[in-house]
Formats: sequence, C-alpha cells, structure tokens
Amino acid sequence: MMRQKLRTAAALIGTFGLAAAPATLAEEGMWTFDNFPVERMQAQMGWAPDQLWLDRVMAGAARLPGCSASNVSGAGLVLTNHHCVVSCVTSLSSVENNYLEHGFMAQTREEELRCPNLSIDVLTSIRDVTADIESATAGVAPEGFARARDGEFARLIGECSGAETRCEVVTLYQGGRYGLYQYRTFSDVRLVFAPEHSMAAFGGDTDNFNFPRYCLDFSFLRLYSGGRPAVTPNHLDMRFTPLAEDEIVLISGNPGRTSRLRTTAELEFERDVNLPWQIESLGHLRDRLIAYSALGPDQERIASSTLQAVQNSFKGLAGRRQALADPTGFAHVAERQADLQQRVRRNQAATRDVADAWGEIERAQAAYRGMFYEYQYLEQRAGERSLLFAWARDLVRGAAERERPDAERLVRYSETRLPSVVQGLRANRTITPSFEELHLALWLSELRARLPANNQAARALLGSEAPEALAQRLSQSRLNDPTYRMELWQGGAAAIAESTDPMIMFVRGMDADARAVRERYVSRVEAPVALAQERIARARFRAFGDTQYPDATFSPRITYGRVIGWSEPSGRVVGPFTHTDGLFERSTGTAPFVLSERWADARGRIDPRGIVNVSTSTDVIGGNSGGPLLDRDGDVVGAVFDGNVHLLGGEYFYDGRLNRSVTVTSTIIRTALADVYGMSALVAEIEGR
Amino acid sequence: MMRQKLRTAAALIGTFGLAAAPATLAEEGMWTFDNFPVERMQAQMGWAPDQLWLDRVMAGAARLPGCSASNVSGAGLVLTNHHCVVSCVTSLSSVENNYLEHGFMAQTREEELRCPNLSIDVLTSIRDVTADIESATAGVAPEGFARARDGEFARLIGECSGAETRCEVVTLYQGGRYGLYQYRTFSDVRLVFAPEHSMAAFGGDTDNFNFPRYCLDFSFLRLYSGGRPAVTPNHLDMRFTPLAEDEIVLISGNPGRTSRLRTTAELEFERDVNLPWQIESLGHLRDRLIAYSALGPDQERIASSTLQAVQNSFKGLAGRRQALADPTGFAHVAERQADLQQRVRRNQAATRDVADAWGEIERAQAAYRGMFYEYQYLEQRAGERSLLFAWARDLVRGAAERERPDAERLVRYSETRLPSVVQGLRANRTITPSFEELHLALWLSELRARLPANNQAARALLGSEAPEALAQRLSQSRLNDPTYRMELWQGGAAAIAESTDPMIMFVRGMDADARAVRERYVSRVEAPVALAQERIARARFRAFGDTQYPDATFSPRITYGRVIGWSEPSGRVVGPFTHTDGLFERSTGTAPFVLSERWADARGRIDPRGIVNVSTSTDVIGGNSGGPLLDRDGDVVGAVFDGNVHLLGGEYFYDGRLNRSVTVTSTIIRTALADVYGMSALVAEIEGR
Repeated sequence: MMRQKLRTAAALIGTFGLAAAPATLAEEGMWTFDNFPVERMQAQMGWAPDQLWLDRVMAGAARLPGCSASNVSGAGLVLTNHHCVVSCVTSLSSVENNYLEHGFMAQTREEELRCPNLSIDVLTSIRDVTADIESATAGVAPEGFARARDGEFARLIGECSGAETRCEVVTLYQGGRYGLYQYRTFSDVRLVFAPEHSMAAFGGDTDNFNFPRYCLDFSFLRLYSGGRPAVTPNHLDMRFTPLAEDEIVLISGNPGRTSRLRTTAELEFERDVNLPWQIESLGHLRDRLIAYSALGPDQERIASSTLQAVQNSFKGLAGRRQALADPTGFAHVAERQADLQQRVRRNQAATRDVADAWGEIERAQAAYRGMFYEYQYLEQRAGERSLLFAWARDLVRGAAERERPDAERLVRYSETRLPSVVQGLRANRTITPSFEELHLALWLSELRARLPANNQAARALLGSEAPEALAQRLSQSRLNDPTYRMELWQGGAAAIAESTDPMIMFVRGMDADARAVRERYVSRVEAPVALAQERIARARFRAFGDTQYPDATFSPRITYGRVIGWSEPSGRVVGPFTHTDGLFERSTGTAPFVLSERWADARGRIDPRGIVNVSTSTDVIGGNSGGPLLDRDGDVVGAVFDGNVHLLGGEYFYDGRLNRSVTVTSTIIRTALADVYGMSALVAEIEGR
Repeated sequence: MMRQKLRTAAALIGTFGLAAAPATLAEEGMWTFDNFPVERMQAQMGWAPDQLWLDRVMAGAARLPGCSASNVSGAGLVLTNHHCVVSCVTSLSSVENNYLEHGFMAQTREEELRCPNLSIDVLTSIRDVTADIESATAGVAPEGFARARDGEFARLIGECSGAETRCEVVTLYQGGRYGLYQYRTFSDVRLVFAPEHSMAAFGGDTDNFNFPRYCLDFSFLRLYSGGRPAVTPNHLDMRFTPLAEDEIVLISGNPGRTSRLRTTAELEFERDVNLPWQIESLGHLRDRLIAYSALGPDQERIASSTLQAVQNSFKGLAGRRQALADPTGFAHVAERQADLQQRVRRNQAATRDVADAWGEIERAQAAYRGMFYEYQYLEQRAGERSLLFAWARDLVRGAAERERPDAERLVRYSETRLPSVVQGLRANRTITPSFEELHLALWLSELRARLPANNQAARALLGSEAPEALAQRLSQSRLNDPTYRMELWQGGAAAIAESTDPMIMFVRGMDADARAVRERYVSRVEAPVALAQERIARARFRAFGDTQYPDATFSPRITYGRVIGWSEPSGRVVGPFTHTDGLFERSTGTAPFVLSERWADARGRIDPRGIVNVSTSTDVIGGNSGGPLLDRDGDVVGAVFDGNVHLLGGEYFYDGRLNRSVTVTSTIIRTALADVYGMSALVAEIEGR
C-alpha cells in the first residue's frame, strides 16, 4: 500500500528539527521557498528558477493531511495522489457505490461530493520572524526560554490567523531561524475524480518501492468557498508533452521528517539496535495477527487494519536499515560529521561552545544500549496497542501526578494537557477483549524473552504467571466501561489505591519500576543528547547559516533534480521511464496486478509507448506525496507518489547515486482521463480550454 | 527447540575445509587430539593437559548423528543431551507411554529400550595419512587430482574398516593435512534415562540462546555389544563437586562446521545480502504456514514440522547476522585477513602464488550481487520445498543430461550419482497438493517481487498468470504418481518433450533460463572463488602449518577455556552460574516454563543454590552438543548443550569477550537422578560404586 510511503501521518512528524547536512550532495536539498539556492543550482544544472518562478509555484502548491498537492485550474481544481484521498473515497462509498473499487468520476460540478473532515491549506506567505522570537526571548533564563518562545509563537499566530486563514510558526535549523507560514484554509473540499484503487495501487505491496512501476496514483479534488468552486487565479498549468531523459525538474511539497543531522553514534544505534528490534518485533506481531485473523470472519475484520499497517511498515523499516548498513551510505553520515567537526576545530569560539558534544552523544548511546529493552518494554512501549493498558496508566499516573505542583509533573499530566487525557478516558471506544489479549500477550512474552531471566522488574511484573495467562486475566478489566474510568479518575489517588480491577492493580504494581527506568532514560540519554545536539546545531548554523537546508518539518519546500534512472550496486541499470505496454504486460487478473475493466477495454486505443511513471533525482520523503513534479516553465508534469527503495535512506542522508523519486506523469493522467474514463470536461479544464 | 543449536544435521556439514584464523584469539580453537597446543595453553592458562590426558579423553568421547557424547561407566553408559536423543524418545513413545512428555526411566537393564536406527561411534585412533595422499596424487594432472585422491581415500578406508569398525578420511586445513579416523561403531544403543521434555527444554524458544538458563538437557544411553552392555574400560569419570568460577575446563566433541577463513568480501556479502534475504524470506514462509495451519487440524499437522523448523532458524540467522554487523566482531575478520596478507607479502614465493586471490574473490562477490536473486529464484532455490518441482526438474534435466557424455554432465546426473536420483523418483512419498501449492505460490510471488519488472526470465516463467493461480495449476501435476514418474524417466527426452503435465511443461519452459544463470554463477562466482581460496589456503598453511586449528569438520576436537560469565556491549554483566532457585522462580505452569510434577514435588528437598547451568569461554559450535565439559583431571563436569547468542557468530570468528558455551552440570544431573527421579542404581553407576 502506498499510504506509508510519501504520505506522512501527522503523528509521524517529529520535532527533531536539526538543520541539514554540511556537505550537500549533488541534487540534495529540501529548500524553503524564501531561501532557494539559485546560484548553486545554476552552477550545477546550468539553469535555475528566479524568485518570480518560485513565488508562482509556491502559490500553486497545497497541503492536505500528511500529503502535498497542486492547484491546476482557476476553478479550484487540485491534483494529488489517490493514496492521499483514500479515506475520503472510502467514506463516500457504500455497498451500492463502491468508489474505491470502481473509481469516482464526477462528470459535472453537481456530482462532486464533499470529503468529510478534509481541509486543504494553500500557502499564501512566509515571513521571517526570527527577530521577533529573539527579542521576545532575549535575556530570559534558560528554564523560562520555552515558555517565552511559545508565548511569542502564540502571539504571532493569533495576529496572523483569520476565519479562513491558518498560521503556524515553523522552527528551522533547530531554532536558527523561525518562519511564520500563513495558509488559506479550504474546509469545503470535494472529490472530482479517483481511478479504481486497483489501478492507483497497481502492483500493491509487491511493487511498492520498486521501479519499473506502473501506478495511476492520482486523483482530483476541488476547493469550494461559499458553496461554489473557489476562484484560484494563482493555479499552475499542466503540461502534456512527454518528459525527456535528463530534463531538469523540481518538486514542491511538504516533506514530513528527516533526521539528517543525527550523529554517527545515534545512527549506529539506529542501525544495530533499534531498527533490527523493530523489524523482529513487528514480525512477531504479524504472526499473531495472521493466526488471530484465521479464527473467523469477525477476527479477520478486527485485525485487518492493524495487519495492513504492519505489512506496510516492513519495507520501510528494512529499507532504512539497508541504507544505514550500506558502507557507502553510512560514509555520507560520517563525512558530514567529520566536515563539521573540522570546521568547528578551526573556530575557537565554536570549539569552546561545542566542547565534547559528539562524545557526550556517543556515551549517551552506550548508556541507552544498557537500558534499551527495559525502557521500551517497561515504559516507552509498555502495553503497546492495548487501550486497557493505556487507560490504566493514565488513571494511575494521572492520580499521582495531579497531587504534585504543575511544574513538577510529567508533561502529559500538566494542567494544559490534562483535558486531552480526560477526553481520552471519557471517549466511548469499543474494545475487543480477545484483541486486547493478543497485544498484551505479545508485549509480555517479548518482555519475558528480551529482558534477562534475572531482571527484577520483569520478574515482579510477570510474577509466576505465564504471559498468556496474565494477558487473559488483564483483558477482563472493567476499564472498557467509560463510566468506571471516570469514577476512578474523579476518585483520584484513593480510588486507584483501593481498586481491585486487574489492570489497575497491574499498572499500579509496575509503575515504580517503569518510572525508574524512564528517569534513567531521561537523565542519561534524552537530556544529554538534546543538550549536545543543541550545541552542535548552533555550531552548524554558525558555520553554514542558511546556505544549507533545514531538516524536513512538513512545511512547504522545493527540491530539484533531473529525469534520470540509476545503477544498482549489483550493476543492474534502471531507466527513468515506464510505458503503458509494460502495464498491460504486468497484469495477471489477480490482485495486486488487476487491470480494471475500463483499462482492459482501452488497451487497443492507447499508445503503448506512453510514459506511465518516471524516476527523478529529486530529494523527497514521506509528506511529499501528491506534490507536483514541475518543469522549467513551472508547469506540472506529474504528481510524485513514491520512491525507489533507496529513497527510504533519505531519512538519514541523500545518496545522489541511488535515491530516486517516482511520479505519475501528466501525460498518463491526460490519457487516462481522455481515453479511458471519458472525462472530457475535466480534460478541457486541465488543458485550460 | 534445541536441535538446531549445538546439534548439527549431517546435511549441514559443509566441505568448506579451510584452516583456522591466523591471529588466534584468547581461548579460541577447535583442536584435533593429535595436535593440541599444549605450550600455548600452558602459557595462557598456567596449566595444560599432557598427551596421556588427551588420549584418555579421546577414548572416552563418542559421536552420534549431529551430536557428541561421553562414555561415563565401564558398562557402556553414555551421557549426551536430551535434544540429541529426542527422535529416539519419540519413536519409542506411544499414546500410553509418552516418554517425551513424562520422561523415560529404566530402573533395570531389562527396561532399557533400543533406539531404532541409532548408532554411536567411539574414536579409537587417528593416523596422519597426508603422506599417503601426497604420494598417490604426486605427478597427477590437476583434472585427475580429485579422482586420484578419492581413490586413495577409498583404499585407506577399505583397509581400515571392519565389522564394528568405521573409518573416514578427514580433510584438514583445506587439504594441508589428511587424517584417517578409526571408530568403533555401536549399532545397538539403548535408552537408559531421559527427563521430561519440558525440563530438558525448559524455557523453550524464549530462553534459547539466552543466559541465565535452566535446562535439564541431558540423557543417558547405553552401548550394547552382542546383546549385552558393552564393556568400556576407557570411560571417563563424572565429578559431582560444584564447579568454581574461573576454573579451567575443556570440551571434547565434534563441531560441525565453521567458515572462519572466508574473506571479508564474502562475509560482507553474507551480512548485507544473503542473511537479510534469508531472514526476510523465512518470515514470509512463516506467515503462510501460520495461515495454512489455521485452516484446520489436518493442515496444522501437515505444516507443524516445517513451521517448527522455520521458527528455530530465526534466532540462529539473526545471531549470525548480528555478529557480522557488530563492528568489533567484523574487525576480527578484517584483522585475520590483513595479518595473512602481510605474511604473504613478506614471502616472495607466496606472493607469486597467491597473486590477486583476495581481489578475485571480491570481484566474484560483486558479480554475485548482480545475479543473486536470479540465481536463487531461477536455479538454486527454485521451487524450494515442492516435491513436484524437484521431481520435474530431475526428470527434465535427467533426460537431457543422460544424452551427454558422462564427463560433460551436471554432477548430479553423472553415472555414479544417477542411482540416487532414480531412488528419489521411485520413492513412494505422499504429497499434499495444497501444501505444495503453498510453497510454489510463495516461491513464485517472491520471485515476482525480487526480480525487476523487466526481467525477461521472470516474465517468461510467470506469463500473465498470478503466482497463486500458477501455483494452483502446477500443484495439480500427475507427478505425485511414482509410476508416472518412472514412465517419464524411462521415456527420456522424447517423453519429456511430449508431456502435457503442467509441472513438466513449466520446468521444461524455464530450464534454459535457469541453466543460463547457473552457468553464469559457476563461471563468475563459484569457480573463481574456489580457485582463489585454494591459493589462499596454501599460503596460509605455508605461513602457519598446523600451529593453527583447522575449520570444523564434524570430527573429534578439543577446546579449552574457563568457567566465566561475560559483559554485554550494553554493559550488562552476566555471571557464570544459574541455580535451582532460579529454575523454580522462572516456572509459570505454562509452556515453555512448566515444571514437571516430579520437580514441583522435589522443590523442598533440593538445595536452592545447586548449580544448574554454567557458562564457559570454550569455543564450540553446532555438533558439539552433548559433548563432555571436562576438568583438569579429565573428569566430566557436565554436558554442553547450547551457547549464548554470541556463540552464533562462532560460525565466522571466535570473540573471546562474548562467545560462551552453556552446559548442564554433573551436579544438577546427580541431584536430578538421586533426589527427583529416584534413579539410585544409575547414580551408583555414575559414581563408580
């Protein structure tokens, strides 16, 4: 499935806002619109956009949850990926009208259907507010810094926002710069066109992150304002002549998260400890979900979305691990760090400021190794995916934390955040005890296998019960009743202490051990790393300023490159284009390689050499999905929807030899609309007729 | 399950007979009994055995399929692991007498039951036959070498063997030395004692390769000769006083296979390509097996042994990968290679002879990368686990090969090997079409996902069918009928050409592509690597002679070390002993942590501080299972049954910081027999009373 690829869920967008790599490689870079490296690109590519071009493209770009898009007509038409609107398509579908299966085709404006809960942001301006933040925080003591900064954020956002205007302050370069981004928000968004899911996701998980590739992963939405199509004069045009090999292209969009400034010590930890563990433990979850699904149709339905999400994660995790395991890839990380260290050494003030930051991070990683599984299983991912556990922990911790002064509480239970905790406890959510039991049993049995036999906390937590028996007992908790939860919440510490609910007793019993390992983690890993990283970021910004790009922040960026294939380390050469004949040849009639009837019928009418998907050396990541591929005229030549497997390493570094974006082209979009789906009015609209 | 740990299946014993590492680390080494490094050990440990000690221990050692053992009484009593006799225990069991579940306890000789098809070898002598081989092959042209050598092997073995005497020539140091090993073979072996499986394998897969550990993984057999207990005056004594920390210990046994002379290029390939692929693809198989098992009790039964074997493989593969991924671990490999290269450079003749052997292997690995998946999916592991496919390939290839002169055929179809191919085709084996279909569908869908969309061979093979549909069609082959198979075999090429059986047609259609990739593999990878390795081995033997130990060959070896724990890279310190109180505390009443009734009852009667399992720095590998842990007096202080997770890296190198063997001690064996199982006669026998 495509969702986990260039689309990024809001929850994934980290706050790890370090700036980008010192030694920028080839076409590397996710640049902000107000700081595009015009001269660098001109020197590298022999052409670069001017500010007018950049302003025009910025105005034509749009953002939807976890995705990117472009505005391609004066009447509010928006082009994005099919996988970015799949939840809209699903929620508009019924048994009689299954738009996911059969596609959705509005022949007239009247037939366009509003997507529930979907709004789209169009960037209207960026203002550098670094000076505002600096003056608001000047002279503030370190412990007051965050509060003062957040206050200024709120002030700026308040001043800027309006009825249809959304604003956010984006922290760039780990606080080296702050930008105030103003968006026009359209909350009436309607579905115009979506192809059949089997065509949009042709090749499914088999072809996911692979290339050659044949996906019709596009769709059209329309922005409405006051019940009428929005007037959008700043839209971009689409171009329908074929792309040429080596042609210069750019992609605008909202890359979600990168971690390109993490130190080698952190990435070694990621490669050797965290990713292998995640992959293995996801494998165990997958096994249990498959066995559970086989119990009956109810269980299959209950497990299906979790199972699909798990299946989706494997290629991503494996690709990231593979990128870090590749010595050439890892050399990028090491070089980047060595380059910065050398620059720091040349500058006395920087040397003094940074001090032993890299050494501190390395020692913190070593300390993390010593507590990793304890921290994960007792605290960070304790009871993962069990709602009963999550509620119990909020009740047990909430009761204890509320008795403390606000400033001393765990952040989750601070006064400003308590309402959302209460909302979670009050919500009427249905749980399936057997599914809860599955997750609890998995957690407990992994905890048992991963923590050594003589680990005191694990022994206390498991007692003499088998993980399965304990999970079964805990899943009988009364906490599935919201009334009971709210009673316990209101009863506070006394109610918790008296409760005989098995899950409350269990969480109460393990809480001291869990807090202890959390405390060790925060003091020996999290805090030292954050402090050292701040100093490294400062040194970096001192050395490079904004001649480098900041790490991705799910805000609008632009990246450039060429239409180009690549050579695998194995020697296999991959060309940049796929054609419709390949699509027909790859179909089998069985998922995930099913041609829809419309496509099967159209086979004779379509140019067999029409380009379907294209590979480009642009630097994108999850969140860029749906964003326009642009030519030198600023015309839209496609919508990026994926990358090859090497793009996954883009989380850590951009490898110009290998990292490729994959785009569904405007040419195949036009062919599809005109020759397969009979969408003549829509064709006329995107052709500007 | 324990089987895959220190036990090695005969099929696993490779022919990769390179000699051991130049830079021998600490207690590293699997030494032959006639070439023990007495002086080195004396210098390192302050004590070493003399030849008398070695001869005595050699005479008391024994070998059973995939395992090791020791003779511990004058009446033929043999101590080994429970996991080494599990197939005997199973085959002697019935519904009424489930010895696997309840244990087997012969109180008298009359109650001892003969293990079907089990024979045990006791080494009686080793003779160096290097000179015999050299004179038999002197002046023989390279192409005749193997034939001349094999002829001399056969002559030596024929002269040496007798009614109860088995002989084999062991090739050491990649042909630097040859040893003629003579064994007395006992083919009447009877089961004397086996504990309950739940106690022998306490902790199951959860604790597998972990430590602290609590396994009663021992059993007793008895050798019979002429229907009476064998008289074995050369037996070893058992010692029942507790082991002390840091005590010097040795292990004798038959390590199955190590690959400690592979070059860094080969091990990088193993780490980055082969092992990750194996782990991922085993994960897919596991998924399908779990789903299949869930279809019903029949399917569960059919899939169970495959599923168990797959589950067992994961920790092993992951441990090996982890060992190679650890930079400190990999440094051992690189140092070993650099050291040999340096020595070669100092010697003109060696330099000339070796030439660019390392470079050749490196280039061969690069070539392998470019064809790895094609080679695996079209040839090496094509149709893996499908009997229908295997039969079809033998029929199709056998027909073609038999038309060629013997010397030009694929080895499998040479005249000397044809009888075993025919035997396989004639055998009356029952297949389950749906299980065949499962394996075929997995193979085809992985082939489809792993080979690029534009791979011509994959496209031709898959046609326009979905992998599942193709697998379903192929599983309907008539080849499950042995009569039909023999008709096709006898009909030769004409019958194959005319056959309309779907599997025959399919294999016939893909054979040219499969042979082409095989040919590329042999000429660009296999042959260049073998030739280069021969030259490296020669250089190595020239540099070190037999001051190093040879790679493991499933022949008797001895290794030394200490009773010692270790420190994890995470900082966790692990002590060398576990005690009975830990066993009781770890029990839950649910598999795999179930105490048998006898043990639960005995709790009050047993010393809570009695040592159960012990960790030692001895250098062992699969095949050593069941071998005796020995003290300085040559007394048996336990039977080794496993290692910690770092032992898995022992395939490639011995890391003295981390690699630990795990043994069930004689003290807990005596406690179990005397205080739990009431085996007083057996106790008297092992106490020598």
